[in-house]
Amino acid sequence: MGANTFNETHQITFYETDVTNTVTPSMLINMIILASEDQTTSLGVGSDVVSQLGIGWVVTQYKIDITRMPQVNETITLTTRATCYNRYFAFREFWVHDEAGNECVHVESIWVTMNYESRKIVTIPEAIIKPFESEQVKMIPRLGRPKRLTDADQVMTKQYGVRYFDIDGNGHVNNSRYFDWLLDALPMSFLTRHDLVSLNIRFENEVQYHHTVTSEAALVTDVTSSITTKHRITMADGEVATEAECRWVPKQTATEPQTD
Amino acid sequence: MGANTFNETHQITFYETDVTNTVTPSMLINMIILASEDQTTSLGVGSDVVSQLGIGWVVTQYKIDITRMPQVNETITLTTRATCYNRYFAFREFWVHDEAGNECVHVESIWVTMNYESRKIVTIPEAIIKPFESEQVKMIPRLGRPKRLTDADQVMTKQYGVRYFDIDGNGHVNNSRYFDWLLDALPMSFLTRHDLVSLNIRFENEVQYHHTVTSEAALVTDVTSSITTKHRITMADGEVATEAECRWVPKQTATEPQTD
Repeated sequence: MGANTFNETHQITFYETDVTNTVTPSMLINMIILASEDQTTSLGVGSDVVSQLGIGWVVTQYKIDITRMPQVNETITLTTRATCYNRYFAFREFWVHDEAGNECVHVESIWVTMNYESRKIVTIPEAIIKPFESEQVKMIPRLGRPKRLTDADQVMTKQYGVRYFDIDGNGHVNNSRYFDWLLDALPMSFLTRHDLVSLNIRFENEVQYHHTVTSEAALVTDVTSSITTKHRITMADGEVATEAECRWVPKQTATEPQTD
Repeated sequence: MGANTFNETHQITFYETDVTNTVTPSMLINMIILASEDQTTSLGVGSDVVSQLGIGWVVTQYKIDITRMPQVNETITLTTRATCYNRYFAFREFWVHDEAGNECVHVESIWVTMNYESRKIVTIPEAIIKPFESEQVKMIPRLGRPKRLTDADQVMTKQYGVRYFDIDGNGHVNNSRYFDWLLDALPMSFLTRHDLVSLNIRFENEVQYHHTVTSEAALVTDVTSSITTKHRITMADGEVATEAECRWVPKQTATEPQTD
C-alpha cells in the first residue's frame, strides 16, 4: 500500500506568471509547497505541531521536470505524496496537471528535519511522518548532482541583496527566491525565447536577511539538442548557498512577448 | 444609479504574506488588480480589447486605507467599482472584506489611458468605459500629494536592479514591485513592529528592465500619535519614478515573528 496522496486545485493569477504569461519557477515552488502544507495540516502534523518538537522540515533538493509550464488563468491540480523515507531523509513527489488531465510538471524533492537551535539535521520523528503512510526504505532515490560551474566557463554574474519581503512566516528566506536569483542572471533575450524543461537544484547553505548574494550562470555548449545552463549562488565569503542545473528548449511558438 | 460593482473571493496563501503572516502591500495591489482585470474581462473590455485600440490603462495614484491587513489562510472578498470619470481620468475604488464582513482595506485609485507608441495620455474612449456604468463628472476626487522628502530629512537609502521577473505580461514593471522597493528601505525592526494604516503613492515615471533604482525613506517626527514615513524612488539620472507617504501604528500584539 502506497503513501496517501493529497490534491487541490488552483487558478493561476497574473502575478504568478512572467512576461510570457507563463508560471515562474519561483511561483511553481510556492504552489507545490502550498499543497504540501495543506496536506500536513489536514493530517494534523502541520508546521505548528512540528515546531513544538523544536524542529522544522527543510528541503535540500528539488528535481523538476516540465512537460508544459501552465499559463495565466488556467486551473491546475496540485498533487503531492510523501513517497518514502528513511532515518534522515524523506522523499516527496509533486505533480501539476492541467484541466484536461495532462501532466504538466513532476517534482521530486528531498527533505530533512532540522533542529532550530543547533541547525543540525535530526532523525525524522516517527510521529510527524507516520500520518502520510509513507514507505520506510533503506535508501531514498538519488536525484543526481547538478553539473558544476568550472573555471573554464564563461560566467554571467549578478548580485542581489536579501530583502525584508524575501523572509517568510518561518523567519527564513523563502526557497522560491533562489529561483529568481538563479534565473535572472540569464539575459532576458534567452529567457523569453526558451522553455525550461528541467531544473535540478541543491540547497547547501542558508542565506540571511541583509546578505548580498552573487548569482553566477553559464551556458553549456554541447552536442545534445537541449540547452543546459549551470548556476551557483554564493555568499560574500564565497560559501556556496545553492547549485543548480537547468535544461531548456527553444520556444515552440514564435510569438514575442508584448512590449507595449 | 451608481457604477456596477464586481466582487470575488480569494484565499490568502503563505506566499502573499510576510514574516508576520500578514498580506504584503505588493500582494494587496496584485489582488485588487486581479479583481479589476476580472471585472473588465467580464464586461468584454479586458486588456486584449483595450490594447486593440493601441492604448492601455495605467494607474497614476493609489490611496490605501487599512483597518486590518488580512492574514495567511483568511478568505477575503475583493470588491471593485469604476466609480466616476472625466475626459482624462478614471476614479476606481476597491474594498477588501474579511469573512465576518468587516472592511479591512479601502483603496482609491486614479487611472489614465496611455497610447502605447507615444506614451502620451489620451482621452478615455467611451467604448471601454461605458460598460462600467461609471458616473461622468467634471472633476474626479483629489487624493492629495504624498509629503515630499526634503534636504532636512535623514534619509535611508537602498538600491535595486530591475529584474526579469519584475516584468509582467504587459511588458512593464509590475506596479506591485515599487511597494517592495519603497518599504524595504525601512529597517526590519521597524517593519515587524508596526502596522501600515495608510499609503499614498503617485507613479511619476516608469522604470525599465535593467535600470537601477534608488529607494529613499525618512521617518517624520511630529506630535501626532501615528508615525509617518516619506518615500521616493529615483532612477540613475535622478528622475523621480515614485513618491509615497505611509502612516503606521505600533503593532497591537506583542508577538515577535518566528525566527526559527
